[in-house]
Amino acid sequence: MPPARRLVLASGSPARLALLRAAGFAPEVIVSGVDEVAVAACSSRVEEVPELVERLARAKAEAVAERPEAEGALIIGCDSLFELDGEVRGKPLSAENAAARIRDQRGRTGVLHTGHCLVDQESGQTVSAVRSTEVTFGPMTDEEVDAYVATGEPLEVAGAFTLDGRAAVFVDGIDGDPSNVIGLSLPELRLLLDEIGVPVISLWT
Amino acid sequence: MPPARRLVLASGSPARLALLRAAGFAPEVIVSGVDEVAVAACSSRVEEVPELVERLARAKAEAVAERPEAEGALIIGCDSLFELDGEVRGKPLSAENAAARIRDQRGRTGVLHTGHCLVDQESGQTVSAVRSTEVTFGPMTDEEVDAYVATGEPLEVAGAFTLDGRAAVFVDGIDGDPSNVIGLSLPELRLLLDEIGVPVISLWT
Repeated sequence: MPPARRLVLASGSPARLALLRAAGFAPEVIVSGVDEVAVAACSSRVEEVPELVERLARAKAEAVAERPEAEGALIIGCDSLFELDGEVRGKPLSAENAAARIRDQRGRTGVLHTGHCLVDQESGQTVSAVRSTEVTFGPMTDEEVDAYVATGEPLEVAGAFTLDGRAAVFVDGIDGDPSNVIGLSLPELRLLLDEIGVPVISLWT
Repeated sequence: MPPARRLVLASGSPARLALLRAAGFAPEVIVSGVDEVAVAACSSRVEEVPELVERLARAKAEAVAERPEAEGALIIGCDSLFELDGEVRGKPLSAENAAARIRDQRGRTGVLHTGHCLVDQESGQTVSAVRSTEVTFGPMTDEEVDAYVATGEPLEVAGAFTLDGRAAVFVDGIDGDPSNVIGLSLPELRLLLDEIGVPVISLWT
């Protein structure tokens, strides 16, 4: 049986796409073009991080909802930021930044916040929610930090670590939902779908 | 640079292989042929579960170590069992069992225990360890249980749920290492490698 509805992922993140596919969904990808840096610049105080990721997720989903190719679809937008000791950390973007942050993070516990927004073009409903998950890093030698940064994996991800990639050996544990740490909480998606009256199993391929 | 050593996974589990590959390793697979049911039958009291999964992991790794094709390799064996309210749960194997267990598990918290054993054929060292991770299930309707069981995913896995598959939407959170829940704790592998003096990054592809 084909899925009951078209699901559109309003994000170019390969990690989010892989999460949805592994969980039995077949989303189309339409990238929003929302400038995260510009929106984030409006607010970077740590107490506003949950609100900020929710706002960014909403901006991405709503931008995609305006596209003709998304007509009638269910659109999911997400945004993630990592917080450590009251400091907000997005994508490090350069190898120098990534190495400095990882050296600072090792052996410590931070929080990965992901905002989620679901726009249902059919019913006209928009719902959103934030999940926050504690992440505890194990020790890393400087050589391990450099080897990890050299793979390029941490450069384009919030918090400079990939729980779905090579950083997994260095993450000692989490408290919460692992998919939230990767960038899209699958149980939160189920709750948002419940809220708008779409059974999660009706979207399975 | 190629990995410094040959890594052999002594398990036919596609989930364990996928975990290792996603984390940058390129293991060969040699299935042990150890009869889990026979070994498990020797002990099924709940207080013995950690000891039991460690023993099974060791039996698998040591069985593979005797094969000529594993000569000189680093061999990792694992075994997982799920515990809920003092009851031990392995693979449900039938759809009826899977459905009954999942209906019983929904909305509750259990513990996934994974035993790990690393045999280093080069240095002659054998090390092992157990990790235990709490898993909390969200609510599921009977219809959702039946739809999940119909996919076949829960039949061949300990505890009748797949955190790396369709069950991810129904797992509200975990407390510990997500890779342990899937069947092989990547941070535990790092610690076992440390113990025998092999840097984890030397095994990256």
